[in-house]
Amino acid sequence: MATKLIYFFGNGSAEGKSAMKDLLGGKGANLAEMTNLGVPVPPGFTISTEVCKSFYENNRNYPEELEGQIKTNLKKLEQIMGKKLGDAKDPLLVSVRSGAAVSMPGMMDTILNLGMNDKAVIGLAEVTQNERFAWDAYRRFIQMFGNVAMGLDINVFENILADMKKSKKVELDTDLDAGDLQQLVDKYKKAYKAKLKKAFPQDPIEQLHAAIDAVFGSWNNEKAIKYRKLNNITGLLGTAVNVQSMVFGNFGDDSGTGVCFSRDPSTGKKVFYGEFLMNAQGEDVVAGIRTPETITSLKKKNAKAYKQLVEIKDKLENHYHDMQDMEFTIQQGELFILQTRNGKRTGPAALKCAVDMVKEKLITKEEAIFRVTPGQLDQLFHPMINPKTKSSLNVIAKGLNASPGAAAGQIVFTAEDAEDWAKDGKKVLLVRQETSPEDIGGMDAAQGILTSTGGMTSHAAVVARGMGTPCVAGCKEVVVSGKSMKVGAKKYKEGDLITIDGTTGEVFEGEVELINPVVTRDLATFLGWADEIRHKAVRDGIKGKGFFVRTNADQPADAKVARNFGAEGIGLCRTEHMFFDAGKLEIFQEMIVANDLDARKKALKKLLPLQKKDFKGIFKAMNGLPVTVRLLDPPLHEFIPKTNAEIKELAGKLGIKPADLKKKAESLHELNPMLGHRGCRLGITYPEIYDMQVEAIMTAACEIAKAKGKVEPEIMIPLVGTKKELELLRKNAEGVIKQVFKKKGMKVKYKIGTMIEIPRAALTAETIAEEADFFSFGTNDLTQMTFGYSRDDIGSFIGDYLDQNVLERDPFQTLDTVGVGSLVDMAVKKGRSVKENMKMGICGEHGGDPDSIKFCYKTGLNYVSCSPYRVPIARLAAAQSVLEDSGK
Amino acid sequence: MATKLIYFFGNGSAEGKSAMKDLLGGKGANLAEMTNLGVPVPPGFTISTEVCKSFYENNRNYPEELEGQIKTNLKKLEQIMGKKLGDAKDPLLVSVRSGAAVSMPGMMDTILNLGMNDKAVIGLAEVTQNERFAWDAYRRFIQMFGNVAMGLDINVFENILADMKKSKKVELDTDLDAGDLQQLVDKYKKAYKAKLKKAFPQDPIEQLHAAIDAVFGSWNNEKAIKYRKLNNITGLLGTAVNVQSMVFGNFGDDSGTGVCFSRDPSTGKKVFYGEFLMNAQGEDVVAGIRTPETITSLKKKNAKAYKQLVEIKDKLENHYHDMQDMEFTIQQGELFILQTRNGKRTGPAALKCAVDMVKEKLITKEEAIFRVTPGQLDQLFHPMINPKTKSSLNVIAKGLNASPGAAAGQIVFTAEDAEDWAKDGKKVLLVRQETSPEDIGGMDAAQGILTSTGGMTSHAAVVARGMGTPCVAGCKEVVVSGKSMKVGAKKYKEGDLITIDGTTGEVFEGEVELINPVVTRDLATFLGWADEIRHKAVRDGIKGKGFFVRTNADQPADAKVARNFGAEGIGLCRTEHMFFDAGKLEIFQEMIVANDLDARKKALKKLLPLQKKDFKGIFKAMNGLPVTVRLLDPPLHEFIPKTNAEIKELAGKLGIKPADLKKKAESLHELNPMLGHRGCRLGITYPEIYDMQVEAIMTAACEIAKAKGKVEPEIMIPLVGTKKELELLRKNAEGVIKQVFKKKGMKVKYKIGTMIEIPRAALTAETIAEEADFFSFGTNDLTQMTFGYSRDDIGSFIGDYLDQNVLERDPFQTLDTVGVGSLVDMAVKKGRSVKENMKMGICGEHGGDPDSIKFCYKTGLNYVSCSPYRVPIARLAAAQSVLEDSGK
Repeated sequence: MATKLIYFFGNGSAEGKSAMKDLLGGKGANLAEMTNLGVPVPPGFTISTEVCKSFYENNRNYPEELEGQIKTNLKKLEQIMGKKLGDAKDPLLVSVRSGAAVSMPGMMDTILNLGMNDKAVIGLAEVTQNERFAWDAYRRFIQMFGNVAMGLDINVFENILADMKKSKKVELDTDLDAGDLQQLVDKYKKAYKAKLKKAFPQDPIEQLHAAIDAVFGSWNNEKAIKYRKLNNITGLLGTAVNVQSMVFGNFGDDSGTGVCFSRDPSTGKKVFYGEFLMNAQGEDVVAGIRTPETITSLKKKNAKAYKQLVEIKDKLENHYHDMQDMEFTIQQGELFILQTRNGKRTGPAALKCAVDMVKEKLITKEEAIFRVTPGQLDQLFHPMINPKTKSSLNVIAKGLNASPGAAAGQIVFTAEDAEDWAKDGKKVLLVRQETSPEDIGGMDAAQGILTSTGGMTSHAAVVARGMGTPCVAGCKEVVVSGKSMKVGAKKYKEGDLITIDGTTGEVFEGEVELINPVVTRDLATFLGWADEIRHKAVRDGIKGKGFFVRTNADQPADAKVARNFGAEGIGLCRTEHMFFDAGKLEIFQEMIVANDLDARKKALKKLLPLQKKDFKGIFKAMNGLPVTVRLLDPPLHEFIPKTNAEIKELAGKLGIKPADLKKKAESLHELNPMLGHRGCRLGITYPEIYDMQVEAIMTAACEIAKAKGKVEPEIMIPLVGTKKELELLRKNAEGVIKQVFKKKGMKVKYKIGTMIEIPRAALTAETIAEEADFFSFGTNDLTQMTFGYSRDDIGSFIGDYLDQNVLERDPFQTLDTVGVGSLVDMAVKKGRSVKENMKMGICGEHGGDPDSIKFCYKTGLNYVSCSPYRVPIARLAAAQSVLEDSGK
Repeated sequence: MATKLIYFFGNGSAEGKSAMKDLLGGKGANLAEMTNLGVPVPPGFTISTEVCKSFYENNRNYPEELEGQIKTNLKKLEQIMGKKLGDAKDPLLVSVRSGAAVSMPGMMDTILNLGMNDKAVIGLAEVTQNERFAWDAYRRFIQMFGNVAMGLDINVFENILADMKKSKKVELDTDLDAGDLQQLVDKYKKAYKAKLKKAFPQDPIEQLHAAIDAVFGSWNNEKAIKYRKLNNITGLLGTAVNVQSMVFGNFGDDSGTGVCFSRDPSTGKKVFYGEFLMNAQGEDVVAGIRTPETITSLKKKNAKAYKQLVEIKDKLENHYHDMQDMEFTIQQGELFILQTRNGKRTGPAALKCAVDMVKEKLITKEEAIFRVTPGQLDQLFHPMINPKTKSSLNVIAKGLNASPGAAAGQIVFTAEDAEDWAKDGKKVLLVRQETSPEDIGGMDAAQGILTSTGGMTSHAAVVARGMGTPCVAGCKEVVVSGKSMKVGAKKYKEGDLITIDGTTGEVFEGEVELINPVVTRDLATFLGWADEIRHKAVRDGIKGKGFFVRTNADQPADAKVARNFGAEGIGLCRTEHMFFDAGKLEIFQEMIVANDLDARKKALKKLLPLQKKDFKGIFKAMNGLPVTVRLLDPPLHEFIPKTNAEIKELAGKLGIKPADLKKKAESLHELNPMLGHRGCRLGITYPEIYDMQVEAIMTAACEIAKAKGKVEPEIMIPLVGTKKELELLRKNAEGVIKQVFKKKGMKVKYKIGTMIEIPRAALTAETIAEEADFFSFGTNDLTQMTFGYSRDDIGSFIGDYLDQNVLERDPFQTLDTVGVGSLVDMAVKKGRSVKENMKMGICGEHGGDPDSIKFCYKTGLNYVSCSPYRVPIARLAAAQSVLEDSGK
């Protein structure tokens, strides 16, 4: 039996179903599912993604059986429709659309009205009794086919159309009559032949094959590849091709087309939400050229269709257990559903949908956990404009609130500029009349996006929401021309500062103060479920040693914020950050420039009470949760100024000669400070510094405990590469602690552990473990040394590396599980071979990255630690990790 | 049965033997062996090293049995000698000396004349009929006992002695008579009591126990620990203690003492060599206070003793199959041998002895291979003064040629200064009246050593030879005072430049031109044996894939030198070193500052023929041996000047604005260049650079092959961390090579491989191996990244790390087998799991380090590559590796 390459749907039954997304793509699988559900879907068939895979694997050749199967399915379609492709009397027209297993909106090709030719146009005009419609469909097809399938510049046709309108002195396409359009078809065909050196094909089968070629070919076009990369879409076979009988929303005023959602994709509220345009084809809505009407106004125009649509959206949401994004067309009053899929949504909407649907018993809590991506949750923490200052701000324009969050930046007018400026470290806002898929890179680089045309489902709006980038769309007051824009009489040029609020659609002049949003009750509910799942798994012994979310915090205030976000401890308190406060920095500098041990000790003695106070504040804020304090890590020269003026100033303060200070600074200079005299190396060469820090930590802990407070200090020694380092420094610390306990007449439980951040530490972890009560993986440094990449200098080549797929992800954002991860895994195993229950965690920035968190859980770490604002994201990712790992 | 802790020797037989060095120490084992051989050795007993071990393991307590066993052995000794310790009539006197399994000259304690007290001195005077001798022996003992066993400052006694000589108006100790010495004893005892608050002990058993304590205690004194560390002496149990009946070289003019060697330890010539002093104790020779006579002049003074000594040295050399270093004493005409051991020797002497002894059939070739350490071989390549310029040089002084090789540097006058100045990167010569064991650190830090007193066996001379440091000793013209020295009327102060020639004993003013020595025929013979052993092992299949010595060479001239030294290929040709030639550098700079691809290509085109020429030269020099060429590695900013003046100059040459060049330089600046945009990262971002280099290499190879030359090019891509990098760059290179072959109408065999120098590369070597024909371990970078140490910045803490034993060795000198080595091992196994016979080598500087070479052989590498002058050392170390690994 020949391999089945094509799946038919129509007449109330389909060969495919929703579960076959990998094979039929999302669109094809859902068309089949809807057909089986009795939803009115125009019949058609889906060519599977395996054909696409085979196409690329076989040097762009199709499987032998394909042509025959197309023939068979087309015949079936013609039978059901009672029409024939290219028929001179009642022609069948079809659309040819892409559709991969993961939605890639606008990235791949679509061809509509296929089957039109010189004969069919006559037949269509007759059977529809609408000559204008027939000629318009023909001219649209030639344009689309020429552009999409044959690669002609769209302006070849647009210019002819513009000339025609000019000569007819009309403004809109709809003002052209049938005769005009017939002339246009003639001109289009001539232009087609002139450019391509062959006539526009009259054979519909030839048209169909060319269209299928174009769709499969578009799988690997530049923008599709870039989109998959930006969205980390991997592992797909390719796109499917859907050949479906056409229905027309541009049949006249009783026809129309639209997009609707079963809930509001922006807020998640359970309201029917959508837009439509009467007398238009689907592309008109998506392209954002005309501004559409809201879905509720359809009720007035066609009550029956509206009622049917409401029933269908309820049916589909109940069936799919998720919010649906549907495309529909009304042809001469009759409703057709062209597509349904789980709707893309903003972070707040995802959260609200998930929480509401659990309450509605539509989904379980476990399912809800996967309904919000960590990225979407992150959107909840995007900056917003300070409400207090907002009333006094000058709103210069208002558009659609297309993607929530506020953003401020310098305006640029091309995607290229956005990328270039962002590379230079500038914050930019991308301003466009409308965006197109080619702009993806620039949209990603921008803080926010502002467009002057297009609706809530326009390209800019959809993509921005997906990216979590604030966007104001369809802001008509903004008139873009070249590299400047006018709002009213005022002109803004490239580089001027603008702020947008994607939650309200407002546009402000200048850079406005932004603040972070407050946490809603839904968030607490949702994260409560996440924690419940995470801790229950641990209680049930799925992983024996717990999986906690801690935070990186260096100040009592940060610690408080993090606890409010649900942090279950501090995984990294960087003591040196405490030195940067005015007052402390100077004393620390005095210590650095000291010429002998006595002078150093004198300065450290001054620092001691100040550090102790900080530690007490942090311990209090954490109220008995574990607090890992890292002893001094950066090289000393980081604390000494570089410029002559600064040196002079500091020398004055310290009462030494500027020349001497300069000499000291020079003596501290390092060629590769990342690999220099830092971390525990300072502890070995200047034991008095660590002694002071340990004394401050433990004195603070004793004083808290004495006042009946709870405290769980963990002293962490950084940058250990040999067992001996930890052995020496542990011995020193224990000596100091003994003295503190004696002085305070009491004891407090504590741990002394180390960071595993040097490859050698991971490689020899079984020896280091002998001296350590815990391991904390410092994956920032570990990534730097394992790859040999300086994070500060990677900018000059990381772009090329990502573009050329040398790296799939930036290893500083997402942990490289293959290389760096193998060291982590090795260290966990080696460490636990010595101390079976050793507590291990991660305190690199990967601790807030969802994919890295999953790795950490799998590898058996006991906690992740991340910045306060990432704590909720980590709680969600951790719950997802637990569920995924348990196979749920 | 009680554990045997003590081994007796005397009366022609001994309980120990030479093979028991670990237990009895070198000295004790050899005293036993000599006794059994019938050599006249004063009887005595050896307390084993296990007692020392037990002493330190049990909180400085001795095994219970020890006291009893000392008693028994002492009784036996008294019986044989017919004298009793502390006897008022004919007292036995003994020496108490240290002696570990490995010689540590002068590092541990010795006490002579033990047994003297107020009664014994009378008895000794009577029985020897020499009152002066008896009182001298007593006062020497009090001084030594007080200083060594009781820790009194030596000056306590020296000052009393000096006062006495002053009051008696005499210059030499020997000018003091018996009465003076008796007074001195009285004063010494009073001083002893005043300082120690207890009387000098009269009980000889108490004296003996205190002396044994002192010797065991000295095992862990600071200088002994430092010596062991400097000489990498590990794994010993401790020291033994030798209690031996005294013989006296200071009995009068028919007595004497000396040190002699069975061959010349400086040249290795088979001549009887040594020195002696009449009427002196051994310490007088070693301390270098009086300048001794040569051994041959003993013939005139005591022909019988001389003849007997010659017979003994022949007997011992034949017995031990090695050159012997002996201590002897003549007491009233009778010869005693106090010690024999394998003699320390200079590199040239080691080589000559090894080669001669094989010829004399005293040892086998395999034994000979271990008779020269790689360090000694290295001495053969020490700089010497250019003979051509030598005649015109001003010799300001001449001393003893104590340790060969020439050295130039700034003079310093304390060991501490030598260490400090050397840490600052200065080359220093250490000038001392005489050195002492406390000076070890400074001697090691100095380029050379110059002393004004002391002979060929003085401390300075012995230690310098061991270190391979040039030394001129006993240079009387040099008068040291404080931090300056006078030579004749001329004063030289700290920091002045001086050159010494340790091979001739000459001292020169200023910094004299030094050159490297020529290779002697012995060296070729010896290394021939080494190569024979190495290659035979491979032929015999002991390790299947060969073990070769290659060189790191970047220029045809270097390649030629290395081939002369026996290099079997080039393991690392750094292409960027070629750019540093004038002419080429400018073109390369032009390439760097180019603003676009075309301009870069234009500059590279100019560079192409120049690089091709270099490659042809290298290929010719290597005549078909494999040549590994590494493509560009350092970051581009290394080629751009830093100062404003240089920038201005270069900008002028390149015809661009200085401001633009400065901007370019700033844009290239990196915070951590070691982890920056270098190596294959440049190849990915600027493929045109590698393309040019590959074209130059392969065009050169084709042209050589076309001219009937032999050529084996290996293209090496540096700094690979991911398989994808190598995959891309290999594909590029193969494209270029295809074009070269097409252009030249021929093909040449080649390999494309990579350096494993990034931890991630080792961790993922099984994937990288798929794209690599060979691996070359770049252990310099691998060490930097595995430890997180910047080699450029390590200076600020490596000293502390070595002092505190955090590191046992500098990991940049000797490969860290535990950490870095585990990555190498991992990569070898992973690589060969994919390609079973993949060629692997090392091209880091460890390739010239003997211990690291041993690791490389064990791990299964196929070659090591080192600098040309290290090639002979590597050949030796490789042969030793092969023999050790095969258990020989």
